[in-house]
Amino acid sequence: MSKHVVVIGAGVLGCTSALCLSKEGYEVTIVARDLPTDLDSQGFASPWAGANWHSFWNDLRTNAWEEATYLKLKSLIPTGLVMKIPSKRYFLEDVSDDIEAEWYRDLVEDFRVIPKEELPEGVKSGCASTILSLAPATYLPWLEDQLRLAGVKLIRRRVESISEAANGMPGVAKADVVVNCTGLGAKSLGGVLDQDVEPIRGQVCLVRAPHVKTDMGIKGYTDGSCYIIPRPDGNVVLGGCQEVGSWDLSVHVDRAETILKRAYALCPELSHGQGWENIPVLRHNVGLRPSRKGGARVEREIVHVPHRSPAAPWKMTESSSLTEKASRPIGLVHAYGIGPAGYQSSWGIAQNVTTLVHDHFTEFPALICSSKL
Amino acid sequence: MSKHVVVIGAGVLGCTSALCLSKEGYEVTIVARDLPTDLDSQGFASPWAGANWHSFWNDLRTNAWEEATYLKLKSLIPTGLVMKIPSKRYFLEDVSDDIEAEWYRDLVEDFRVIPKEELPEGVKSGCASTILSLAPATYLPWLEDQLRLAGVKLIRRRVESISEAANGMPGVAKADVVVNCTGLGAKSLGGVLDQDVEPIRGQVCLVRAPHVKTDMGIKGYTDGSCYIIPRPDGNVVLGGCQEVGSWDLSVHVDRAETILKRAYALCPELSHGQGWENIPVLRHNVGLRPSRKGGARVEREIVHVPHRSPAAPWKMTESSSLTEKASRPIGLVHAYGIGPAGYQSSWGIAQNVTTLVHDHFTEFPALICSSKL
Repeated sequence: MSKHVVVIGAGVLGCTSALCLSKEGYEVTIVARDLPTDLDSQGFASPWAGANWHSFWNDLRTNAWEEATYLKLKSLIPTGLVMKIPSKRYFLEDVSDDIEAEWYRDLVEDFRVIPKEELPEGVKSGCASTILSLAPATYLPWLEDQLRLAGVKLIRRRVESISEAANGMPGVAKADVVVNCTGLGAKSLGGVLDQDVEPIRGQVCLVRAPHVKTDMGIKGYTDGSCYIIPRPDGNVVLGGCQEVGSWDLSVHVDRAETILKRAYALCPELSHGQGWENIPVLRHNVGLRPSRKGGARVEREIVHVPHRSPAAPWKMTESSSLTEKASRPIGLVHAYGIGPAGYQSSWGIAQNVTTLVHDHFTEFPALICSSKL
Repeated sequence: MSKHVVVIGAGVLGCTSALCLSKEGYEVTIVARDLPTDLDSQGFASPWAGANWHSFWNDLRTNAWEEATYLKLKSLIPTGLVMKIPSKRYFLEDVSDDIEAEWYRDLVEDFRVIPKEELPEGVKSGCASTILSLAPATYLPWLEDQLRLAGVKLIRRRVESISEAANGMPGVAKADVVVNCTGLGAKSLGGVLDQDVEPIRGQVCLVRAPHVKTDMGIKGYTDGSCYIIPRPDGNVVLGGCQEVGSWDLSVHVDRAETILKRAYALCPELSHGQGWENIPVLRHNVGLRPSRKGGARVEREIVHVPHRSPAAPWKMTESSSLTEKASRPIGLVHAYGIGPAGYQSSWGIAQNVTTLVHDHFTEFPALICSSKL
């Protein structure tokens, strides 16, 4: 009997999870308002991400996700989708002790603490290593290709509730498990309504500078950080800001100037030394990182969904006390709220999601839905 | 020699302007990130609008736009796209004098001041009339059809600057005039960067109630207004809120409750008297009204655009001091910032835009571009 998993959301977490699930033999359908190749949609964060692998958190759960993702992304280098680049990260404060203890120092190549005498003016500490970089504009279409090759169906549809995802869609078989990768959508998704979800606004300049081949950054500004991320396609991302709680999708001109000036001070080669005004800007981008107070939610539960969609397909809350006759239990696996670390956690979280789905079917073998559609 | 107008933006103002221009014999191309049938895109306001004709402003310019639109929409009633409905508007304050002087009292049918004894409890004044209502989900696809029938080309593309719209797009002839209908985009559009543009967040409940046939509302709540707008398709919009400066695209659950409770108190028939919890909600919608401090901008100017797109297609500002050799002058007509009154001003503004474009060619006949593409 085939086990059908419906993934809601086609950001990097939704797509990668769907791919891993499909490789494990599940029948997988993605349902999403925005598809991976909607590279201009500001409705989801994935097209706008900096999208390098450069860890900046340290907790056991995140480390495991990021380590798994590092190894997978590294294996993709021969495809041209991912590239290795030297990286230098500087800090306005002296955080040498933290740097010495970086969890990933033995994972990445060439990790070293930068000696004081090599630090630029105004910087108190720093580290260097070789990290990974990718470009969403090529990586997301590749992911979509992989999904189609693996037989995953992608359906464009705005989903209002878990019960709709489980059994409310014409032409889609009923789900045994729903995987919730809705990012910021989890705040408004019927049956979830997670009010801890919040955007962290990011604004970057995408510039052309194929000759710049070093990832660089300075942390410690009160208004965000300065970063320079070269991509395999010769474009370079200059950032950035971290505005917690801001949904503002417009480009702030003064922020763009700050970004360009700080990036130029750190890396004058961006315009071959011709001043910040002459950095060839391709686009100013704004994206909303799908964050969550308390960190990403990656866990499973059992919920009851009505056999048919109710008259009101999206009630603000869905009853979890539906009677046995009027409802059926399904597995619900959450994977959202990763904030700025989506790409660098994606394969680790996807493997985690796959394990949670396995666990569900092992624990509740009787819950596999026999009649489809 | 054909005169080519490029309209940026495919909201109700962009589409209606393009249609009027095309009927006047111009060659018209619309270039937009979102097309009229992207009914789920939160990137533009038109799919989310309440979209009735019910005037709430009183100034000569707006009155003229709204009067023209009223007449045009009325002529569409036989198509089924627009319907007449009785309307009752109530006010928590006593604004009888303003009501007596309503500018549109002789334009609409059946206008009357509601006598005190007919007012619901808690309400101090009110008026009744027959107004018009339409549904964006049918009206926008109809507009797109009309555009295609009229030979207008619609191109999906994110435009970064006026100069790009004028001559930077593969496959699109150079523009003699650019019409800027970018709404909130005008804040970030190179060559415009209008910092007076701001969103007014709106949240509504779309419910099913084909038996409710009266438009109703109460004005005067500190946190917005209460309105009930029946549509030709049998759905009813319950609103709402007016959060100036908020870009928040998520549904606020507490706001939805307030909306449903207030609407039910005013019109218990919404759930056949079965309580606010039993109103059949189809969707909770959030849209950003494209507003502008000081009111909509509908005016023309002459700007200089470079003959070729610069190395950086979107500089944050575009030079208006380009030398004659390095640039060509084009007409630029603005039509954005209408806020909550887009549909009810759309035909009036579109006629205004058409006049401005005529004026441009009359005043500057030498500026018609001879070589296309």
